[in-house]
Amino acid sequence: MSAPAAPVQPAPPRPVRFGILGCADIARKVSRALLMLPPGAATVAAVGSRSEDKARRFIAETGLPAARPHGSYESLLGDPDVEAVYLPLPTSLHVPWATAAAARGKHLLLEKPTALCAADLDAILAACDASGVQFMDTTMWIHNPRTAKMREIVADKDAFGDVRVIHSMCGFRASEYFLQNDIRVKPDLDALGVLGDVGWYSIRSILWAVEYELPETVIAHRHPVKNQAGVILACGATLYWADGKTATFNCSFLTNLAFDVTVYGTHGTLHVTDLVIPYEEKYGEFSVASKSNFVKPTIGWDPLPCKHVVTTDLPQEALMVQEFSRLVQNIRDAGGRPEGKWPAITRKTQVVLDAVKASIDKGSEPVEVAS
Amino acid sequence: MSAPAAPVQPAPPRPVRFGILGCADIARKVSRALLMLPPGAATVAAVGSRSEDKARRFIAETGLPAARPHGSYESLLGDPDVEAVYLPLPTSLHVPWATAAAARGKHLLLEKPTALCAADLDAILAACDASGVQFMDTTMWIHNPRTAKMREIVADKDAFGDVRVIHSMCGFRASEYFLQNDIRVKPDLDALGVLGDVGWYSIRSILWAVEYELPETVIAHRHPVKNQAGVILACGATLYWADGKTATFNCSFLTNLAFDVTVYGTHGTLHVTDLVIPYEEKYGEFSVASKSNFVKPTIGWDPLPCKHVVTTDLPQEALMVQEFSRLVQNIRDAGGRPEGKWPAITRKTQVVLDAVKASIDKGSEPVEVAS
Repeated sequence: MSAPAAPVQPAPPRPVRFGILGCADIARKVSRALLMLPPGAATVAAVGSRSEDKARRFIAETGLPAARPHGSYESLLGDPDVEAVYLPLPTSLHVPWATAAAARGKHLLLEKPTALCAADLDAILAACDASGVQFMDTTMWIHNPRTAKMREIVADKDAFGDVRVIHSMCGFRASEYFLQNDIRVKPDLDALGVLGDVGWYSIRSILWAVEYELPETVIAHRHPVKNQAGVILACGATLYWADGKTATFNCSFLTNLAFDVTVYGTHGTLHVTDLVIPYEEKYGEFSVASKSNFVKPTIGWDPLPCKHVVTTDLPQEALMVQEFSRLVQNIRDAGGRPEGKWPAITRKTQVVLDAVKASIDKGSEPVEVAS
Repeated sequence: MSAPAAPVQPAPPRPVRFGILGCADIARKVSRALLMLPPGAATVAAVGSRSEDKARRFIAETGLPAARPHGSYESLLGDPDVEAVYLPLPTSLHVPWATAAAARGKHLLLEKPTALCAADLDAILAACDASGVQFMDTTMWIHNPRTAKMREIVADKDAFGDVRVIHSMCGFRASEYFLQNDIRVKPDLDALGVLGDVGWYSIRSILWAVEYELPETVIAHRHPVKNQAGVILACGATLYWADGKTATFNCSFLTNLAFDVTVYGTHGTLHVTDLVIPYEEKYGEFSVASKSNFVKPTIGWDPLPCKHVVTTDLPQEALMVQEFSRLVQNIRDAGGRPEGKWPAITRKTQVVLDAVKASIDKGSEPVEVAS
């Protein structure tokens, strides 16, 4: 008998080489997240801006000395060292640059709102599909372990029952400067305004609560607040499902910071008040009531709701880029296929967002949700 | 100079003598509350039921040995020893018995929903007015010191700003027995169903949040859930104010216990999740965020929301009967006039409830709120 072969030590994974396409504020958060990952996950190979100086400054300020500056988006996409693109450009620029990135075979991590409408998103997804690259949007909280824990509870048919009603409010009080200058209030840059910005999260959270079952009909609340250019600053809507479930949401640039989602089930209730940006980076709470009865004669609750705490070593945005990198490595190094779950939930979010926007544009007429 | 006169010791107040008209379950809670009051506030002089046996049993079970049993409502109203009537009969019976009580000069503490419609309530209020008796509905949480503390915070223009959005959900998971037998699902007894029961609290809480400014328009959510007799088991609505404020609420007999109200202001946010029945009888929490900013780069909140705790020696229902008794004593012993605030907020609640009901009946058409 021959001696057993020495076990082959697997090669450490090669990190995914990111290119950051645009130096928006949010790119600083994602750069920071990329730097938090354990070795072998991801590196920032390049940063592209409309000016090389700006790219260079971004690289210096975010501590990415290994990154190459590019003075144009085209130049970054032509960089053979870039495998994956994180794209935080204004929404109006998503179709040309996201499809160009995909056509060059770059995996795509795309800021939300992913597109101005589902048809535009479909062009991006088709380009990703044609090139076999991974697509993911940047809904960070989906990657928080708290979200997985909440999902487990909401899915528990005994303790939570069936989801019947959902309410979400996502918003923050924008400064006067923001309301005059931010790209999110400019019709040529982010024409969806607050609906595309934090409204995206409300819609996603509602879909998340119902395991991504699309509503049948959407009716926007009346009198959305718009700026002089017609961009939405505050709005709301009610969503209706075939089986009688309903959801309402509000989103606003005009009220104090809020990231509320409450899910009401036949046996349980879940409250979270900092879904999108947890109060603290590595610590997340939520509260669950299950099978709550009255203490007779209706003088209290029994059992009381429970507070749940979920901690995380890596913040949610780092877990997002880690998961995206893992999927890219699986394609690049192990012959895997792109994970279809991510574009699928992006598309559902966009389709509902389209319906809300259409209802707003039609003066709060009911709008059927396209499938 | 003559010596100063010895201070005159005021006579201890004579307690208000209540008659309880009907032995509903909720009457046990109110009887218990009356027994908690300090001496001199109130006593239960009589209990009236359709059967004297039932009245006698109620008196024994609730520990009201001084109370006289009456075998009919008419007999209780004829009892000269009764000064004030607590009336927990099914809503359909409110107009005849509440107007009869007022006509006999009895002060009136009336269970909610106070009437099937505002016109009916107006008949009751007119009768109270004609007799100069005090009217109050039994929205107990209004009397909780927590509510006063929350009011103070919401009214703080600096810390909270202007209220822009409100959401409320009030509901509980009714048993199969309840859904078959309770008066609140019977069209001839409590035709407003869940809307009159816990929906009353959602509407009141929304009005409370805006200092009782009436909305202009109400639109019910589509597809309310009704039982076979057409009584509403779950519904919702959106309320619109002239200045752009909006509120949504849901109420349900079909989901887990919830008494949520969230108020979103331009500078502050208030969350309370047990408004109507506090988790614990003498302890109430709520949470307030004010001028919340992001920790840059959007990785947390600063400042964090604050938890507020308000304790109370007497539970809210005892504070309610205490306040009602004080007002009656002020009329009886000090020549005071009935306090108009209580019927005024009852009427506003009923008027909005009417509009929601009308919108439901019209298939979710917008309904103007009558003033």
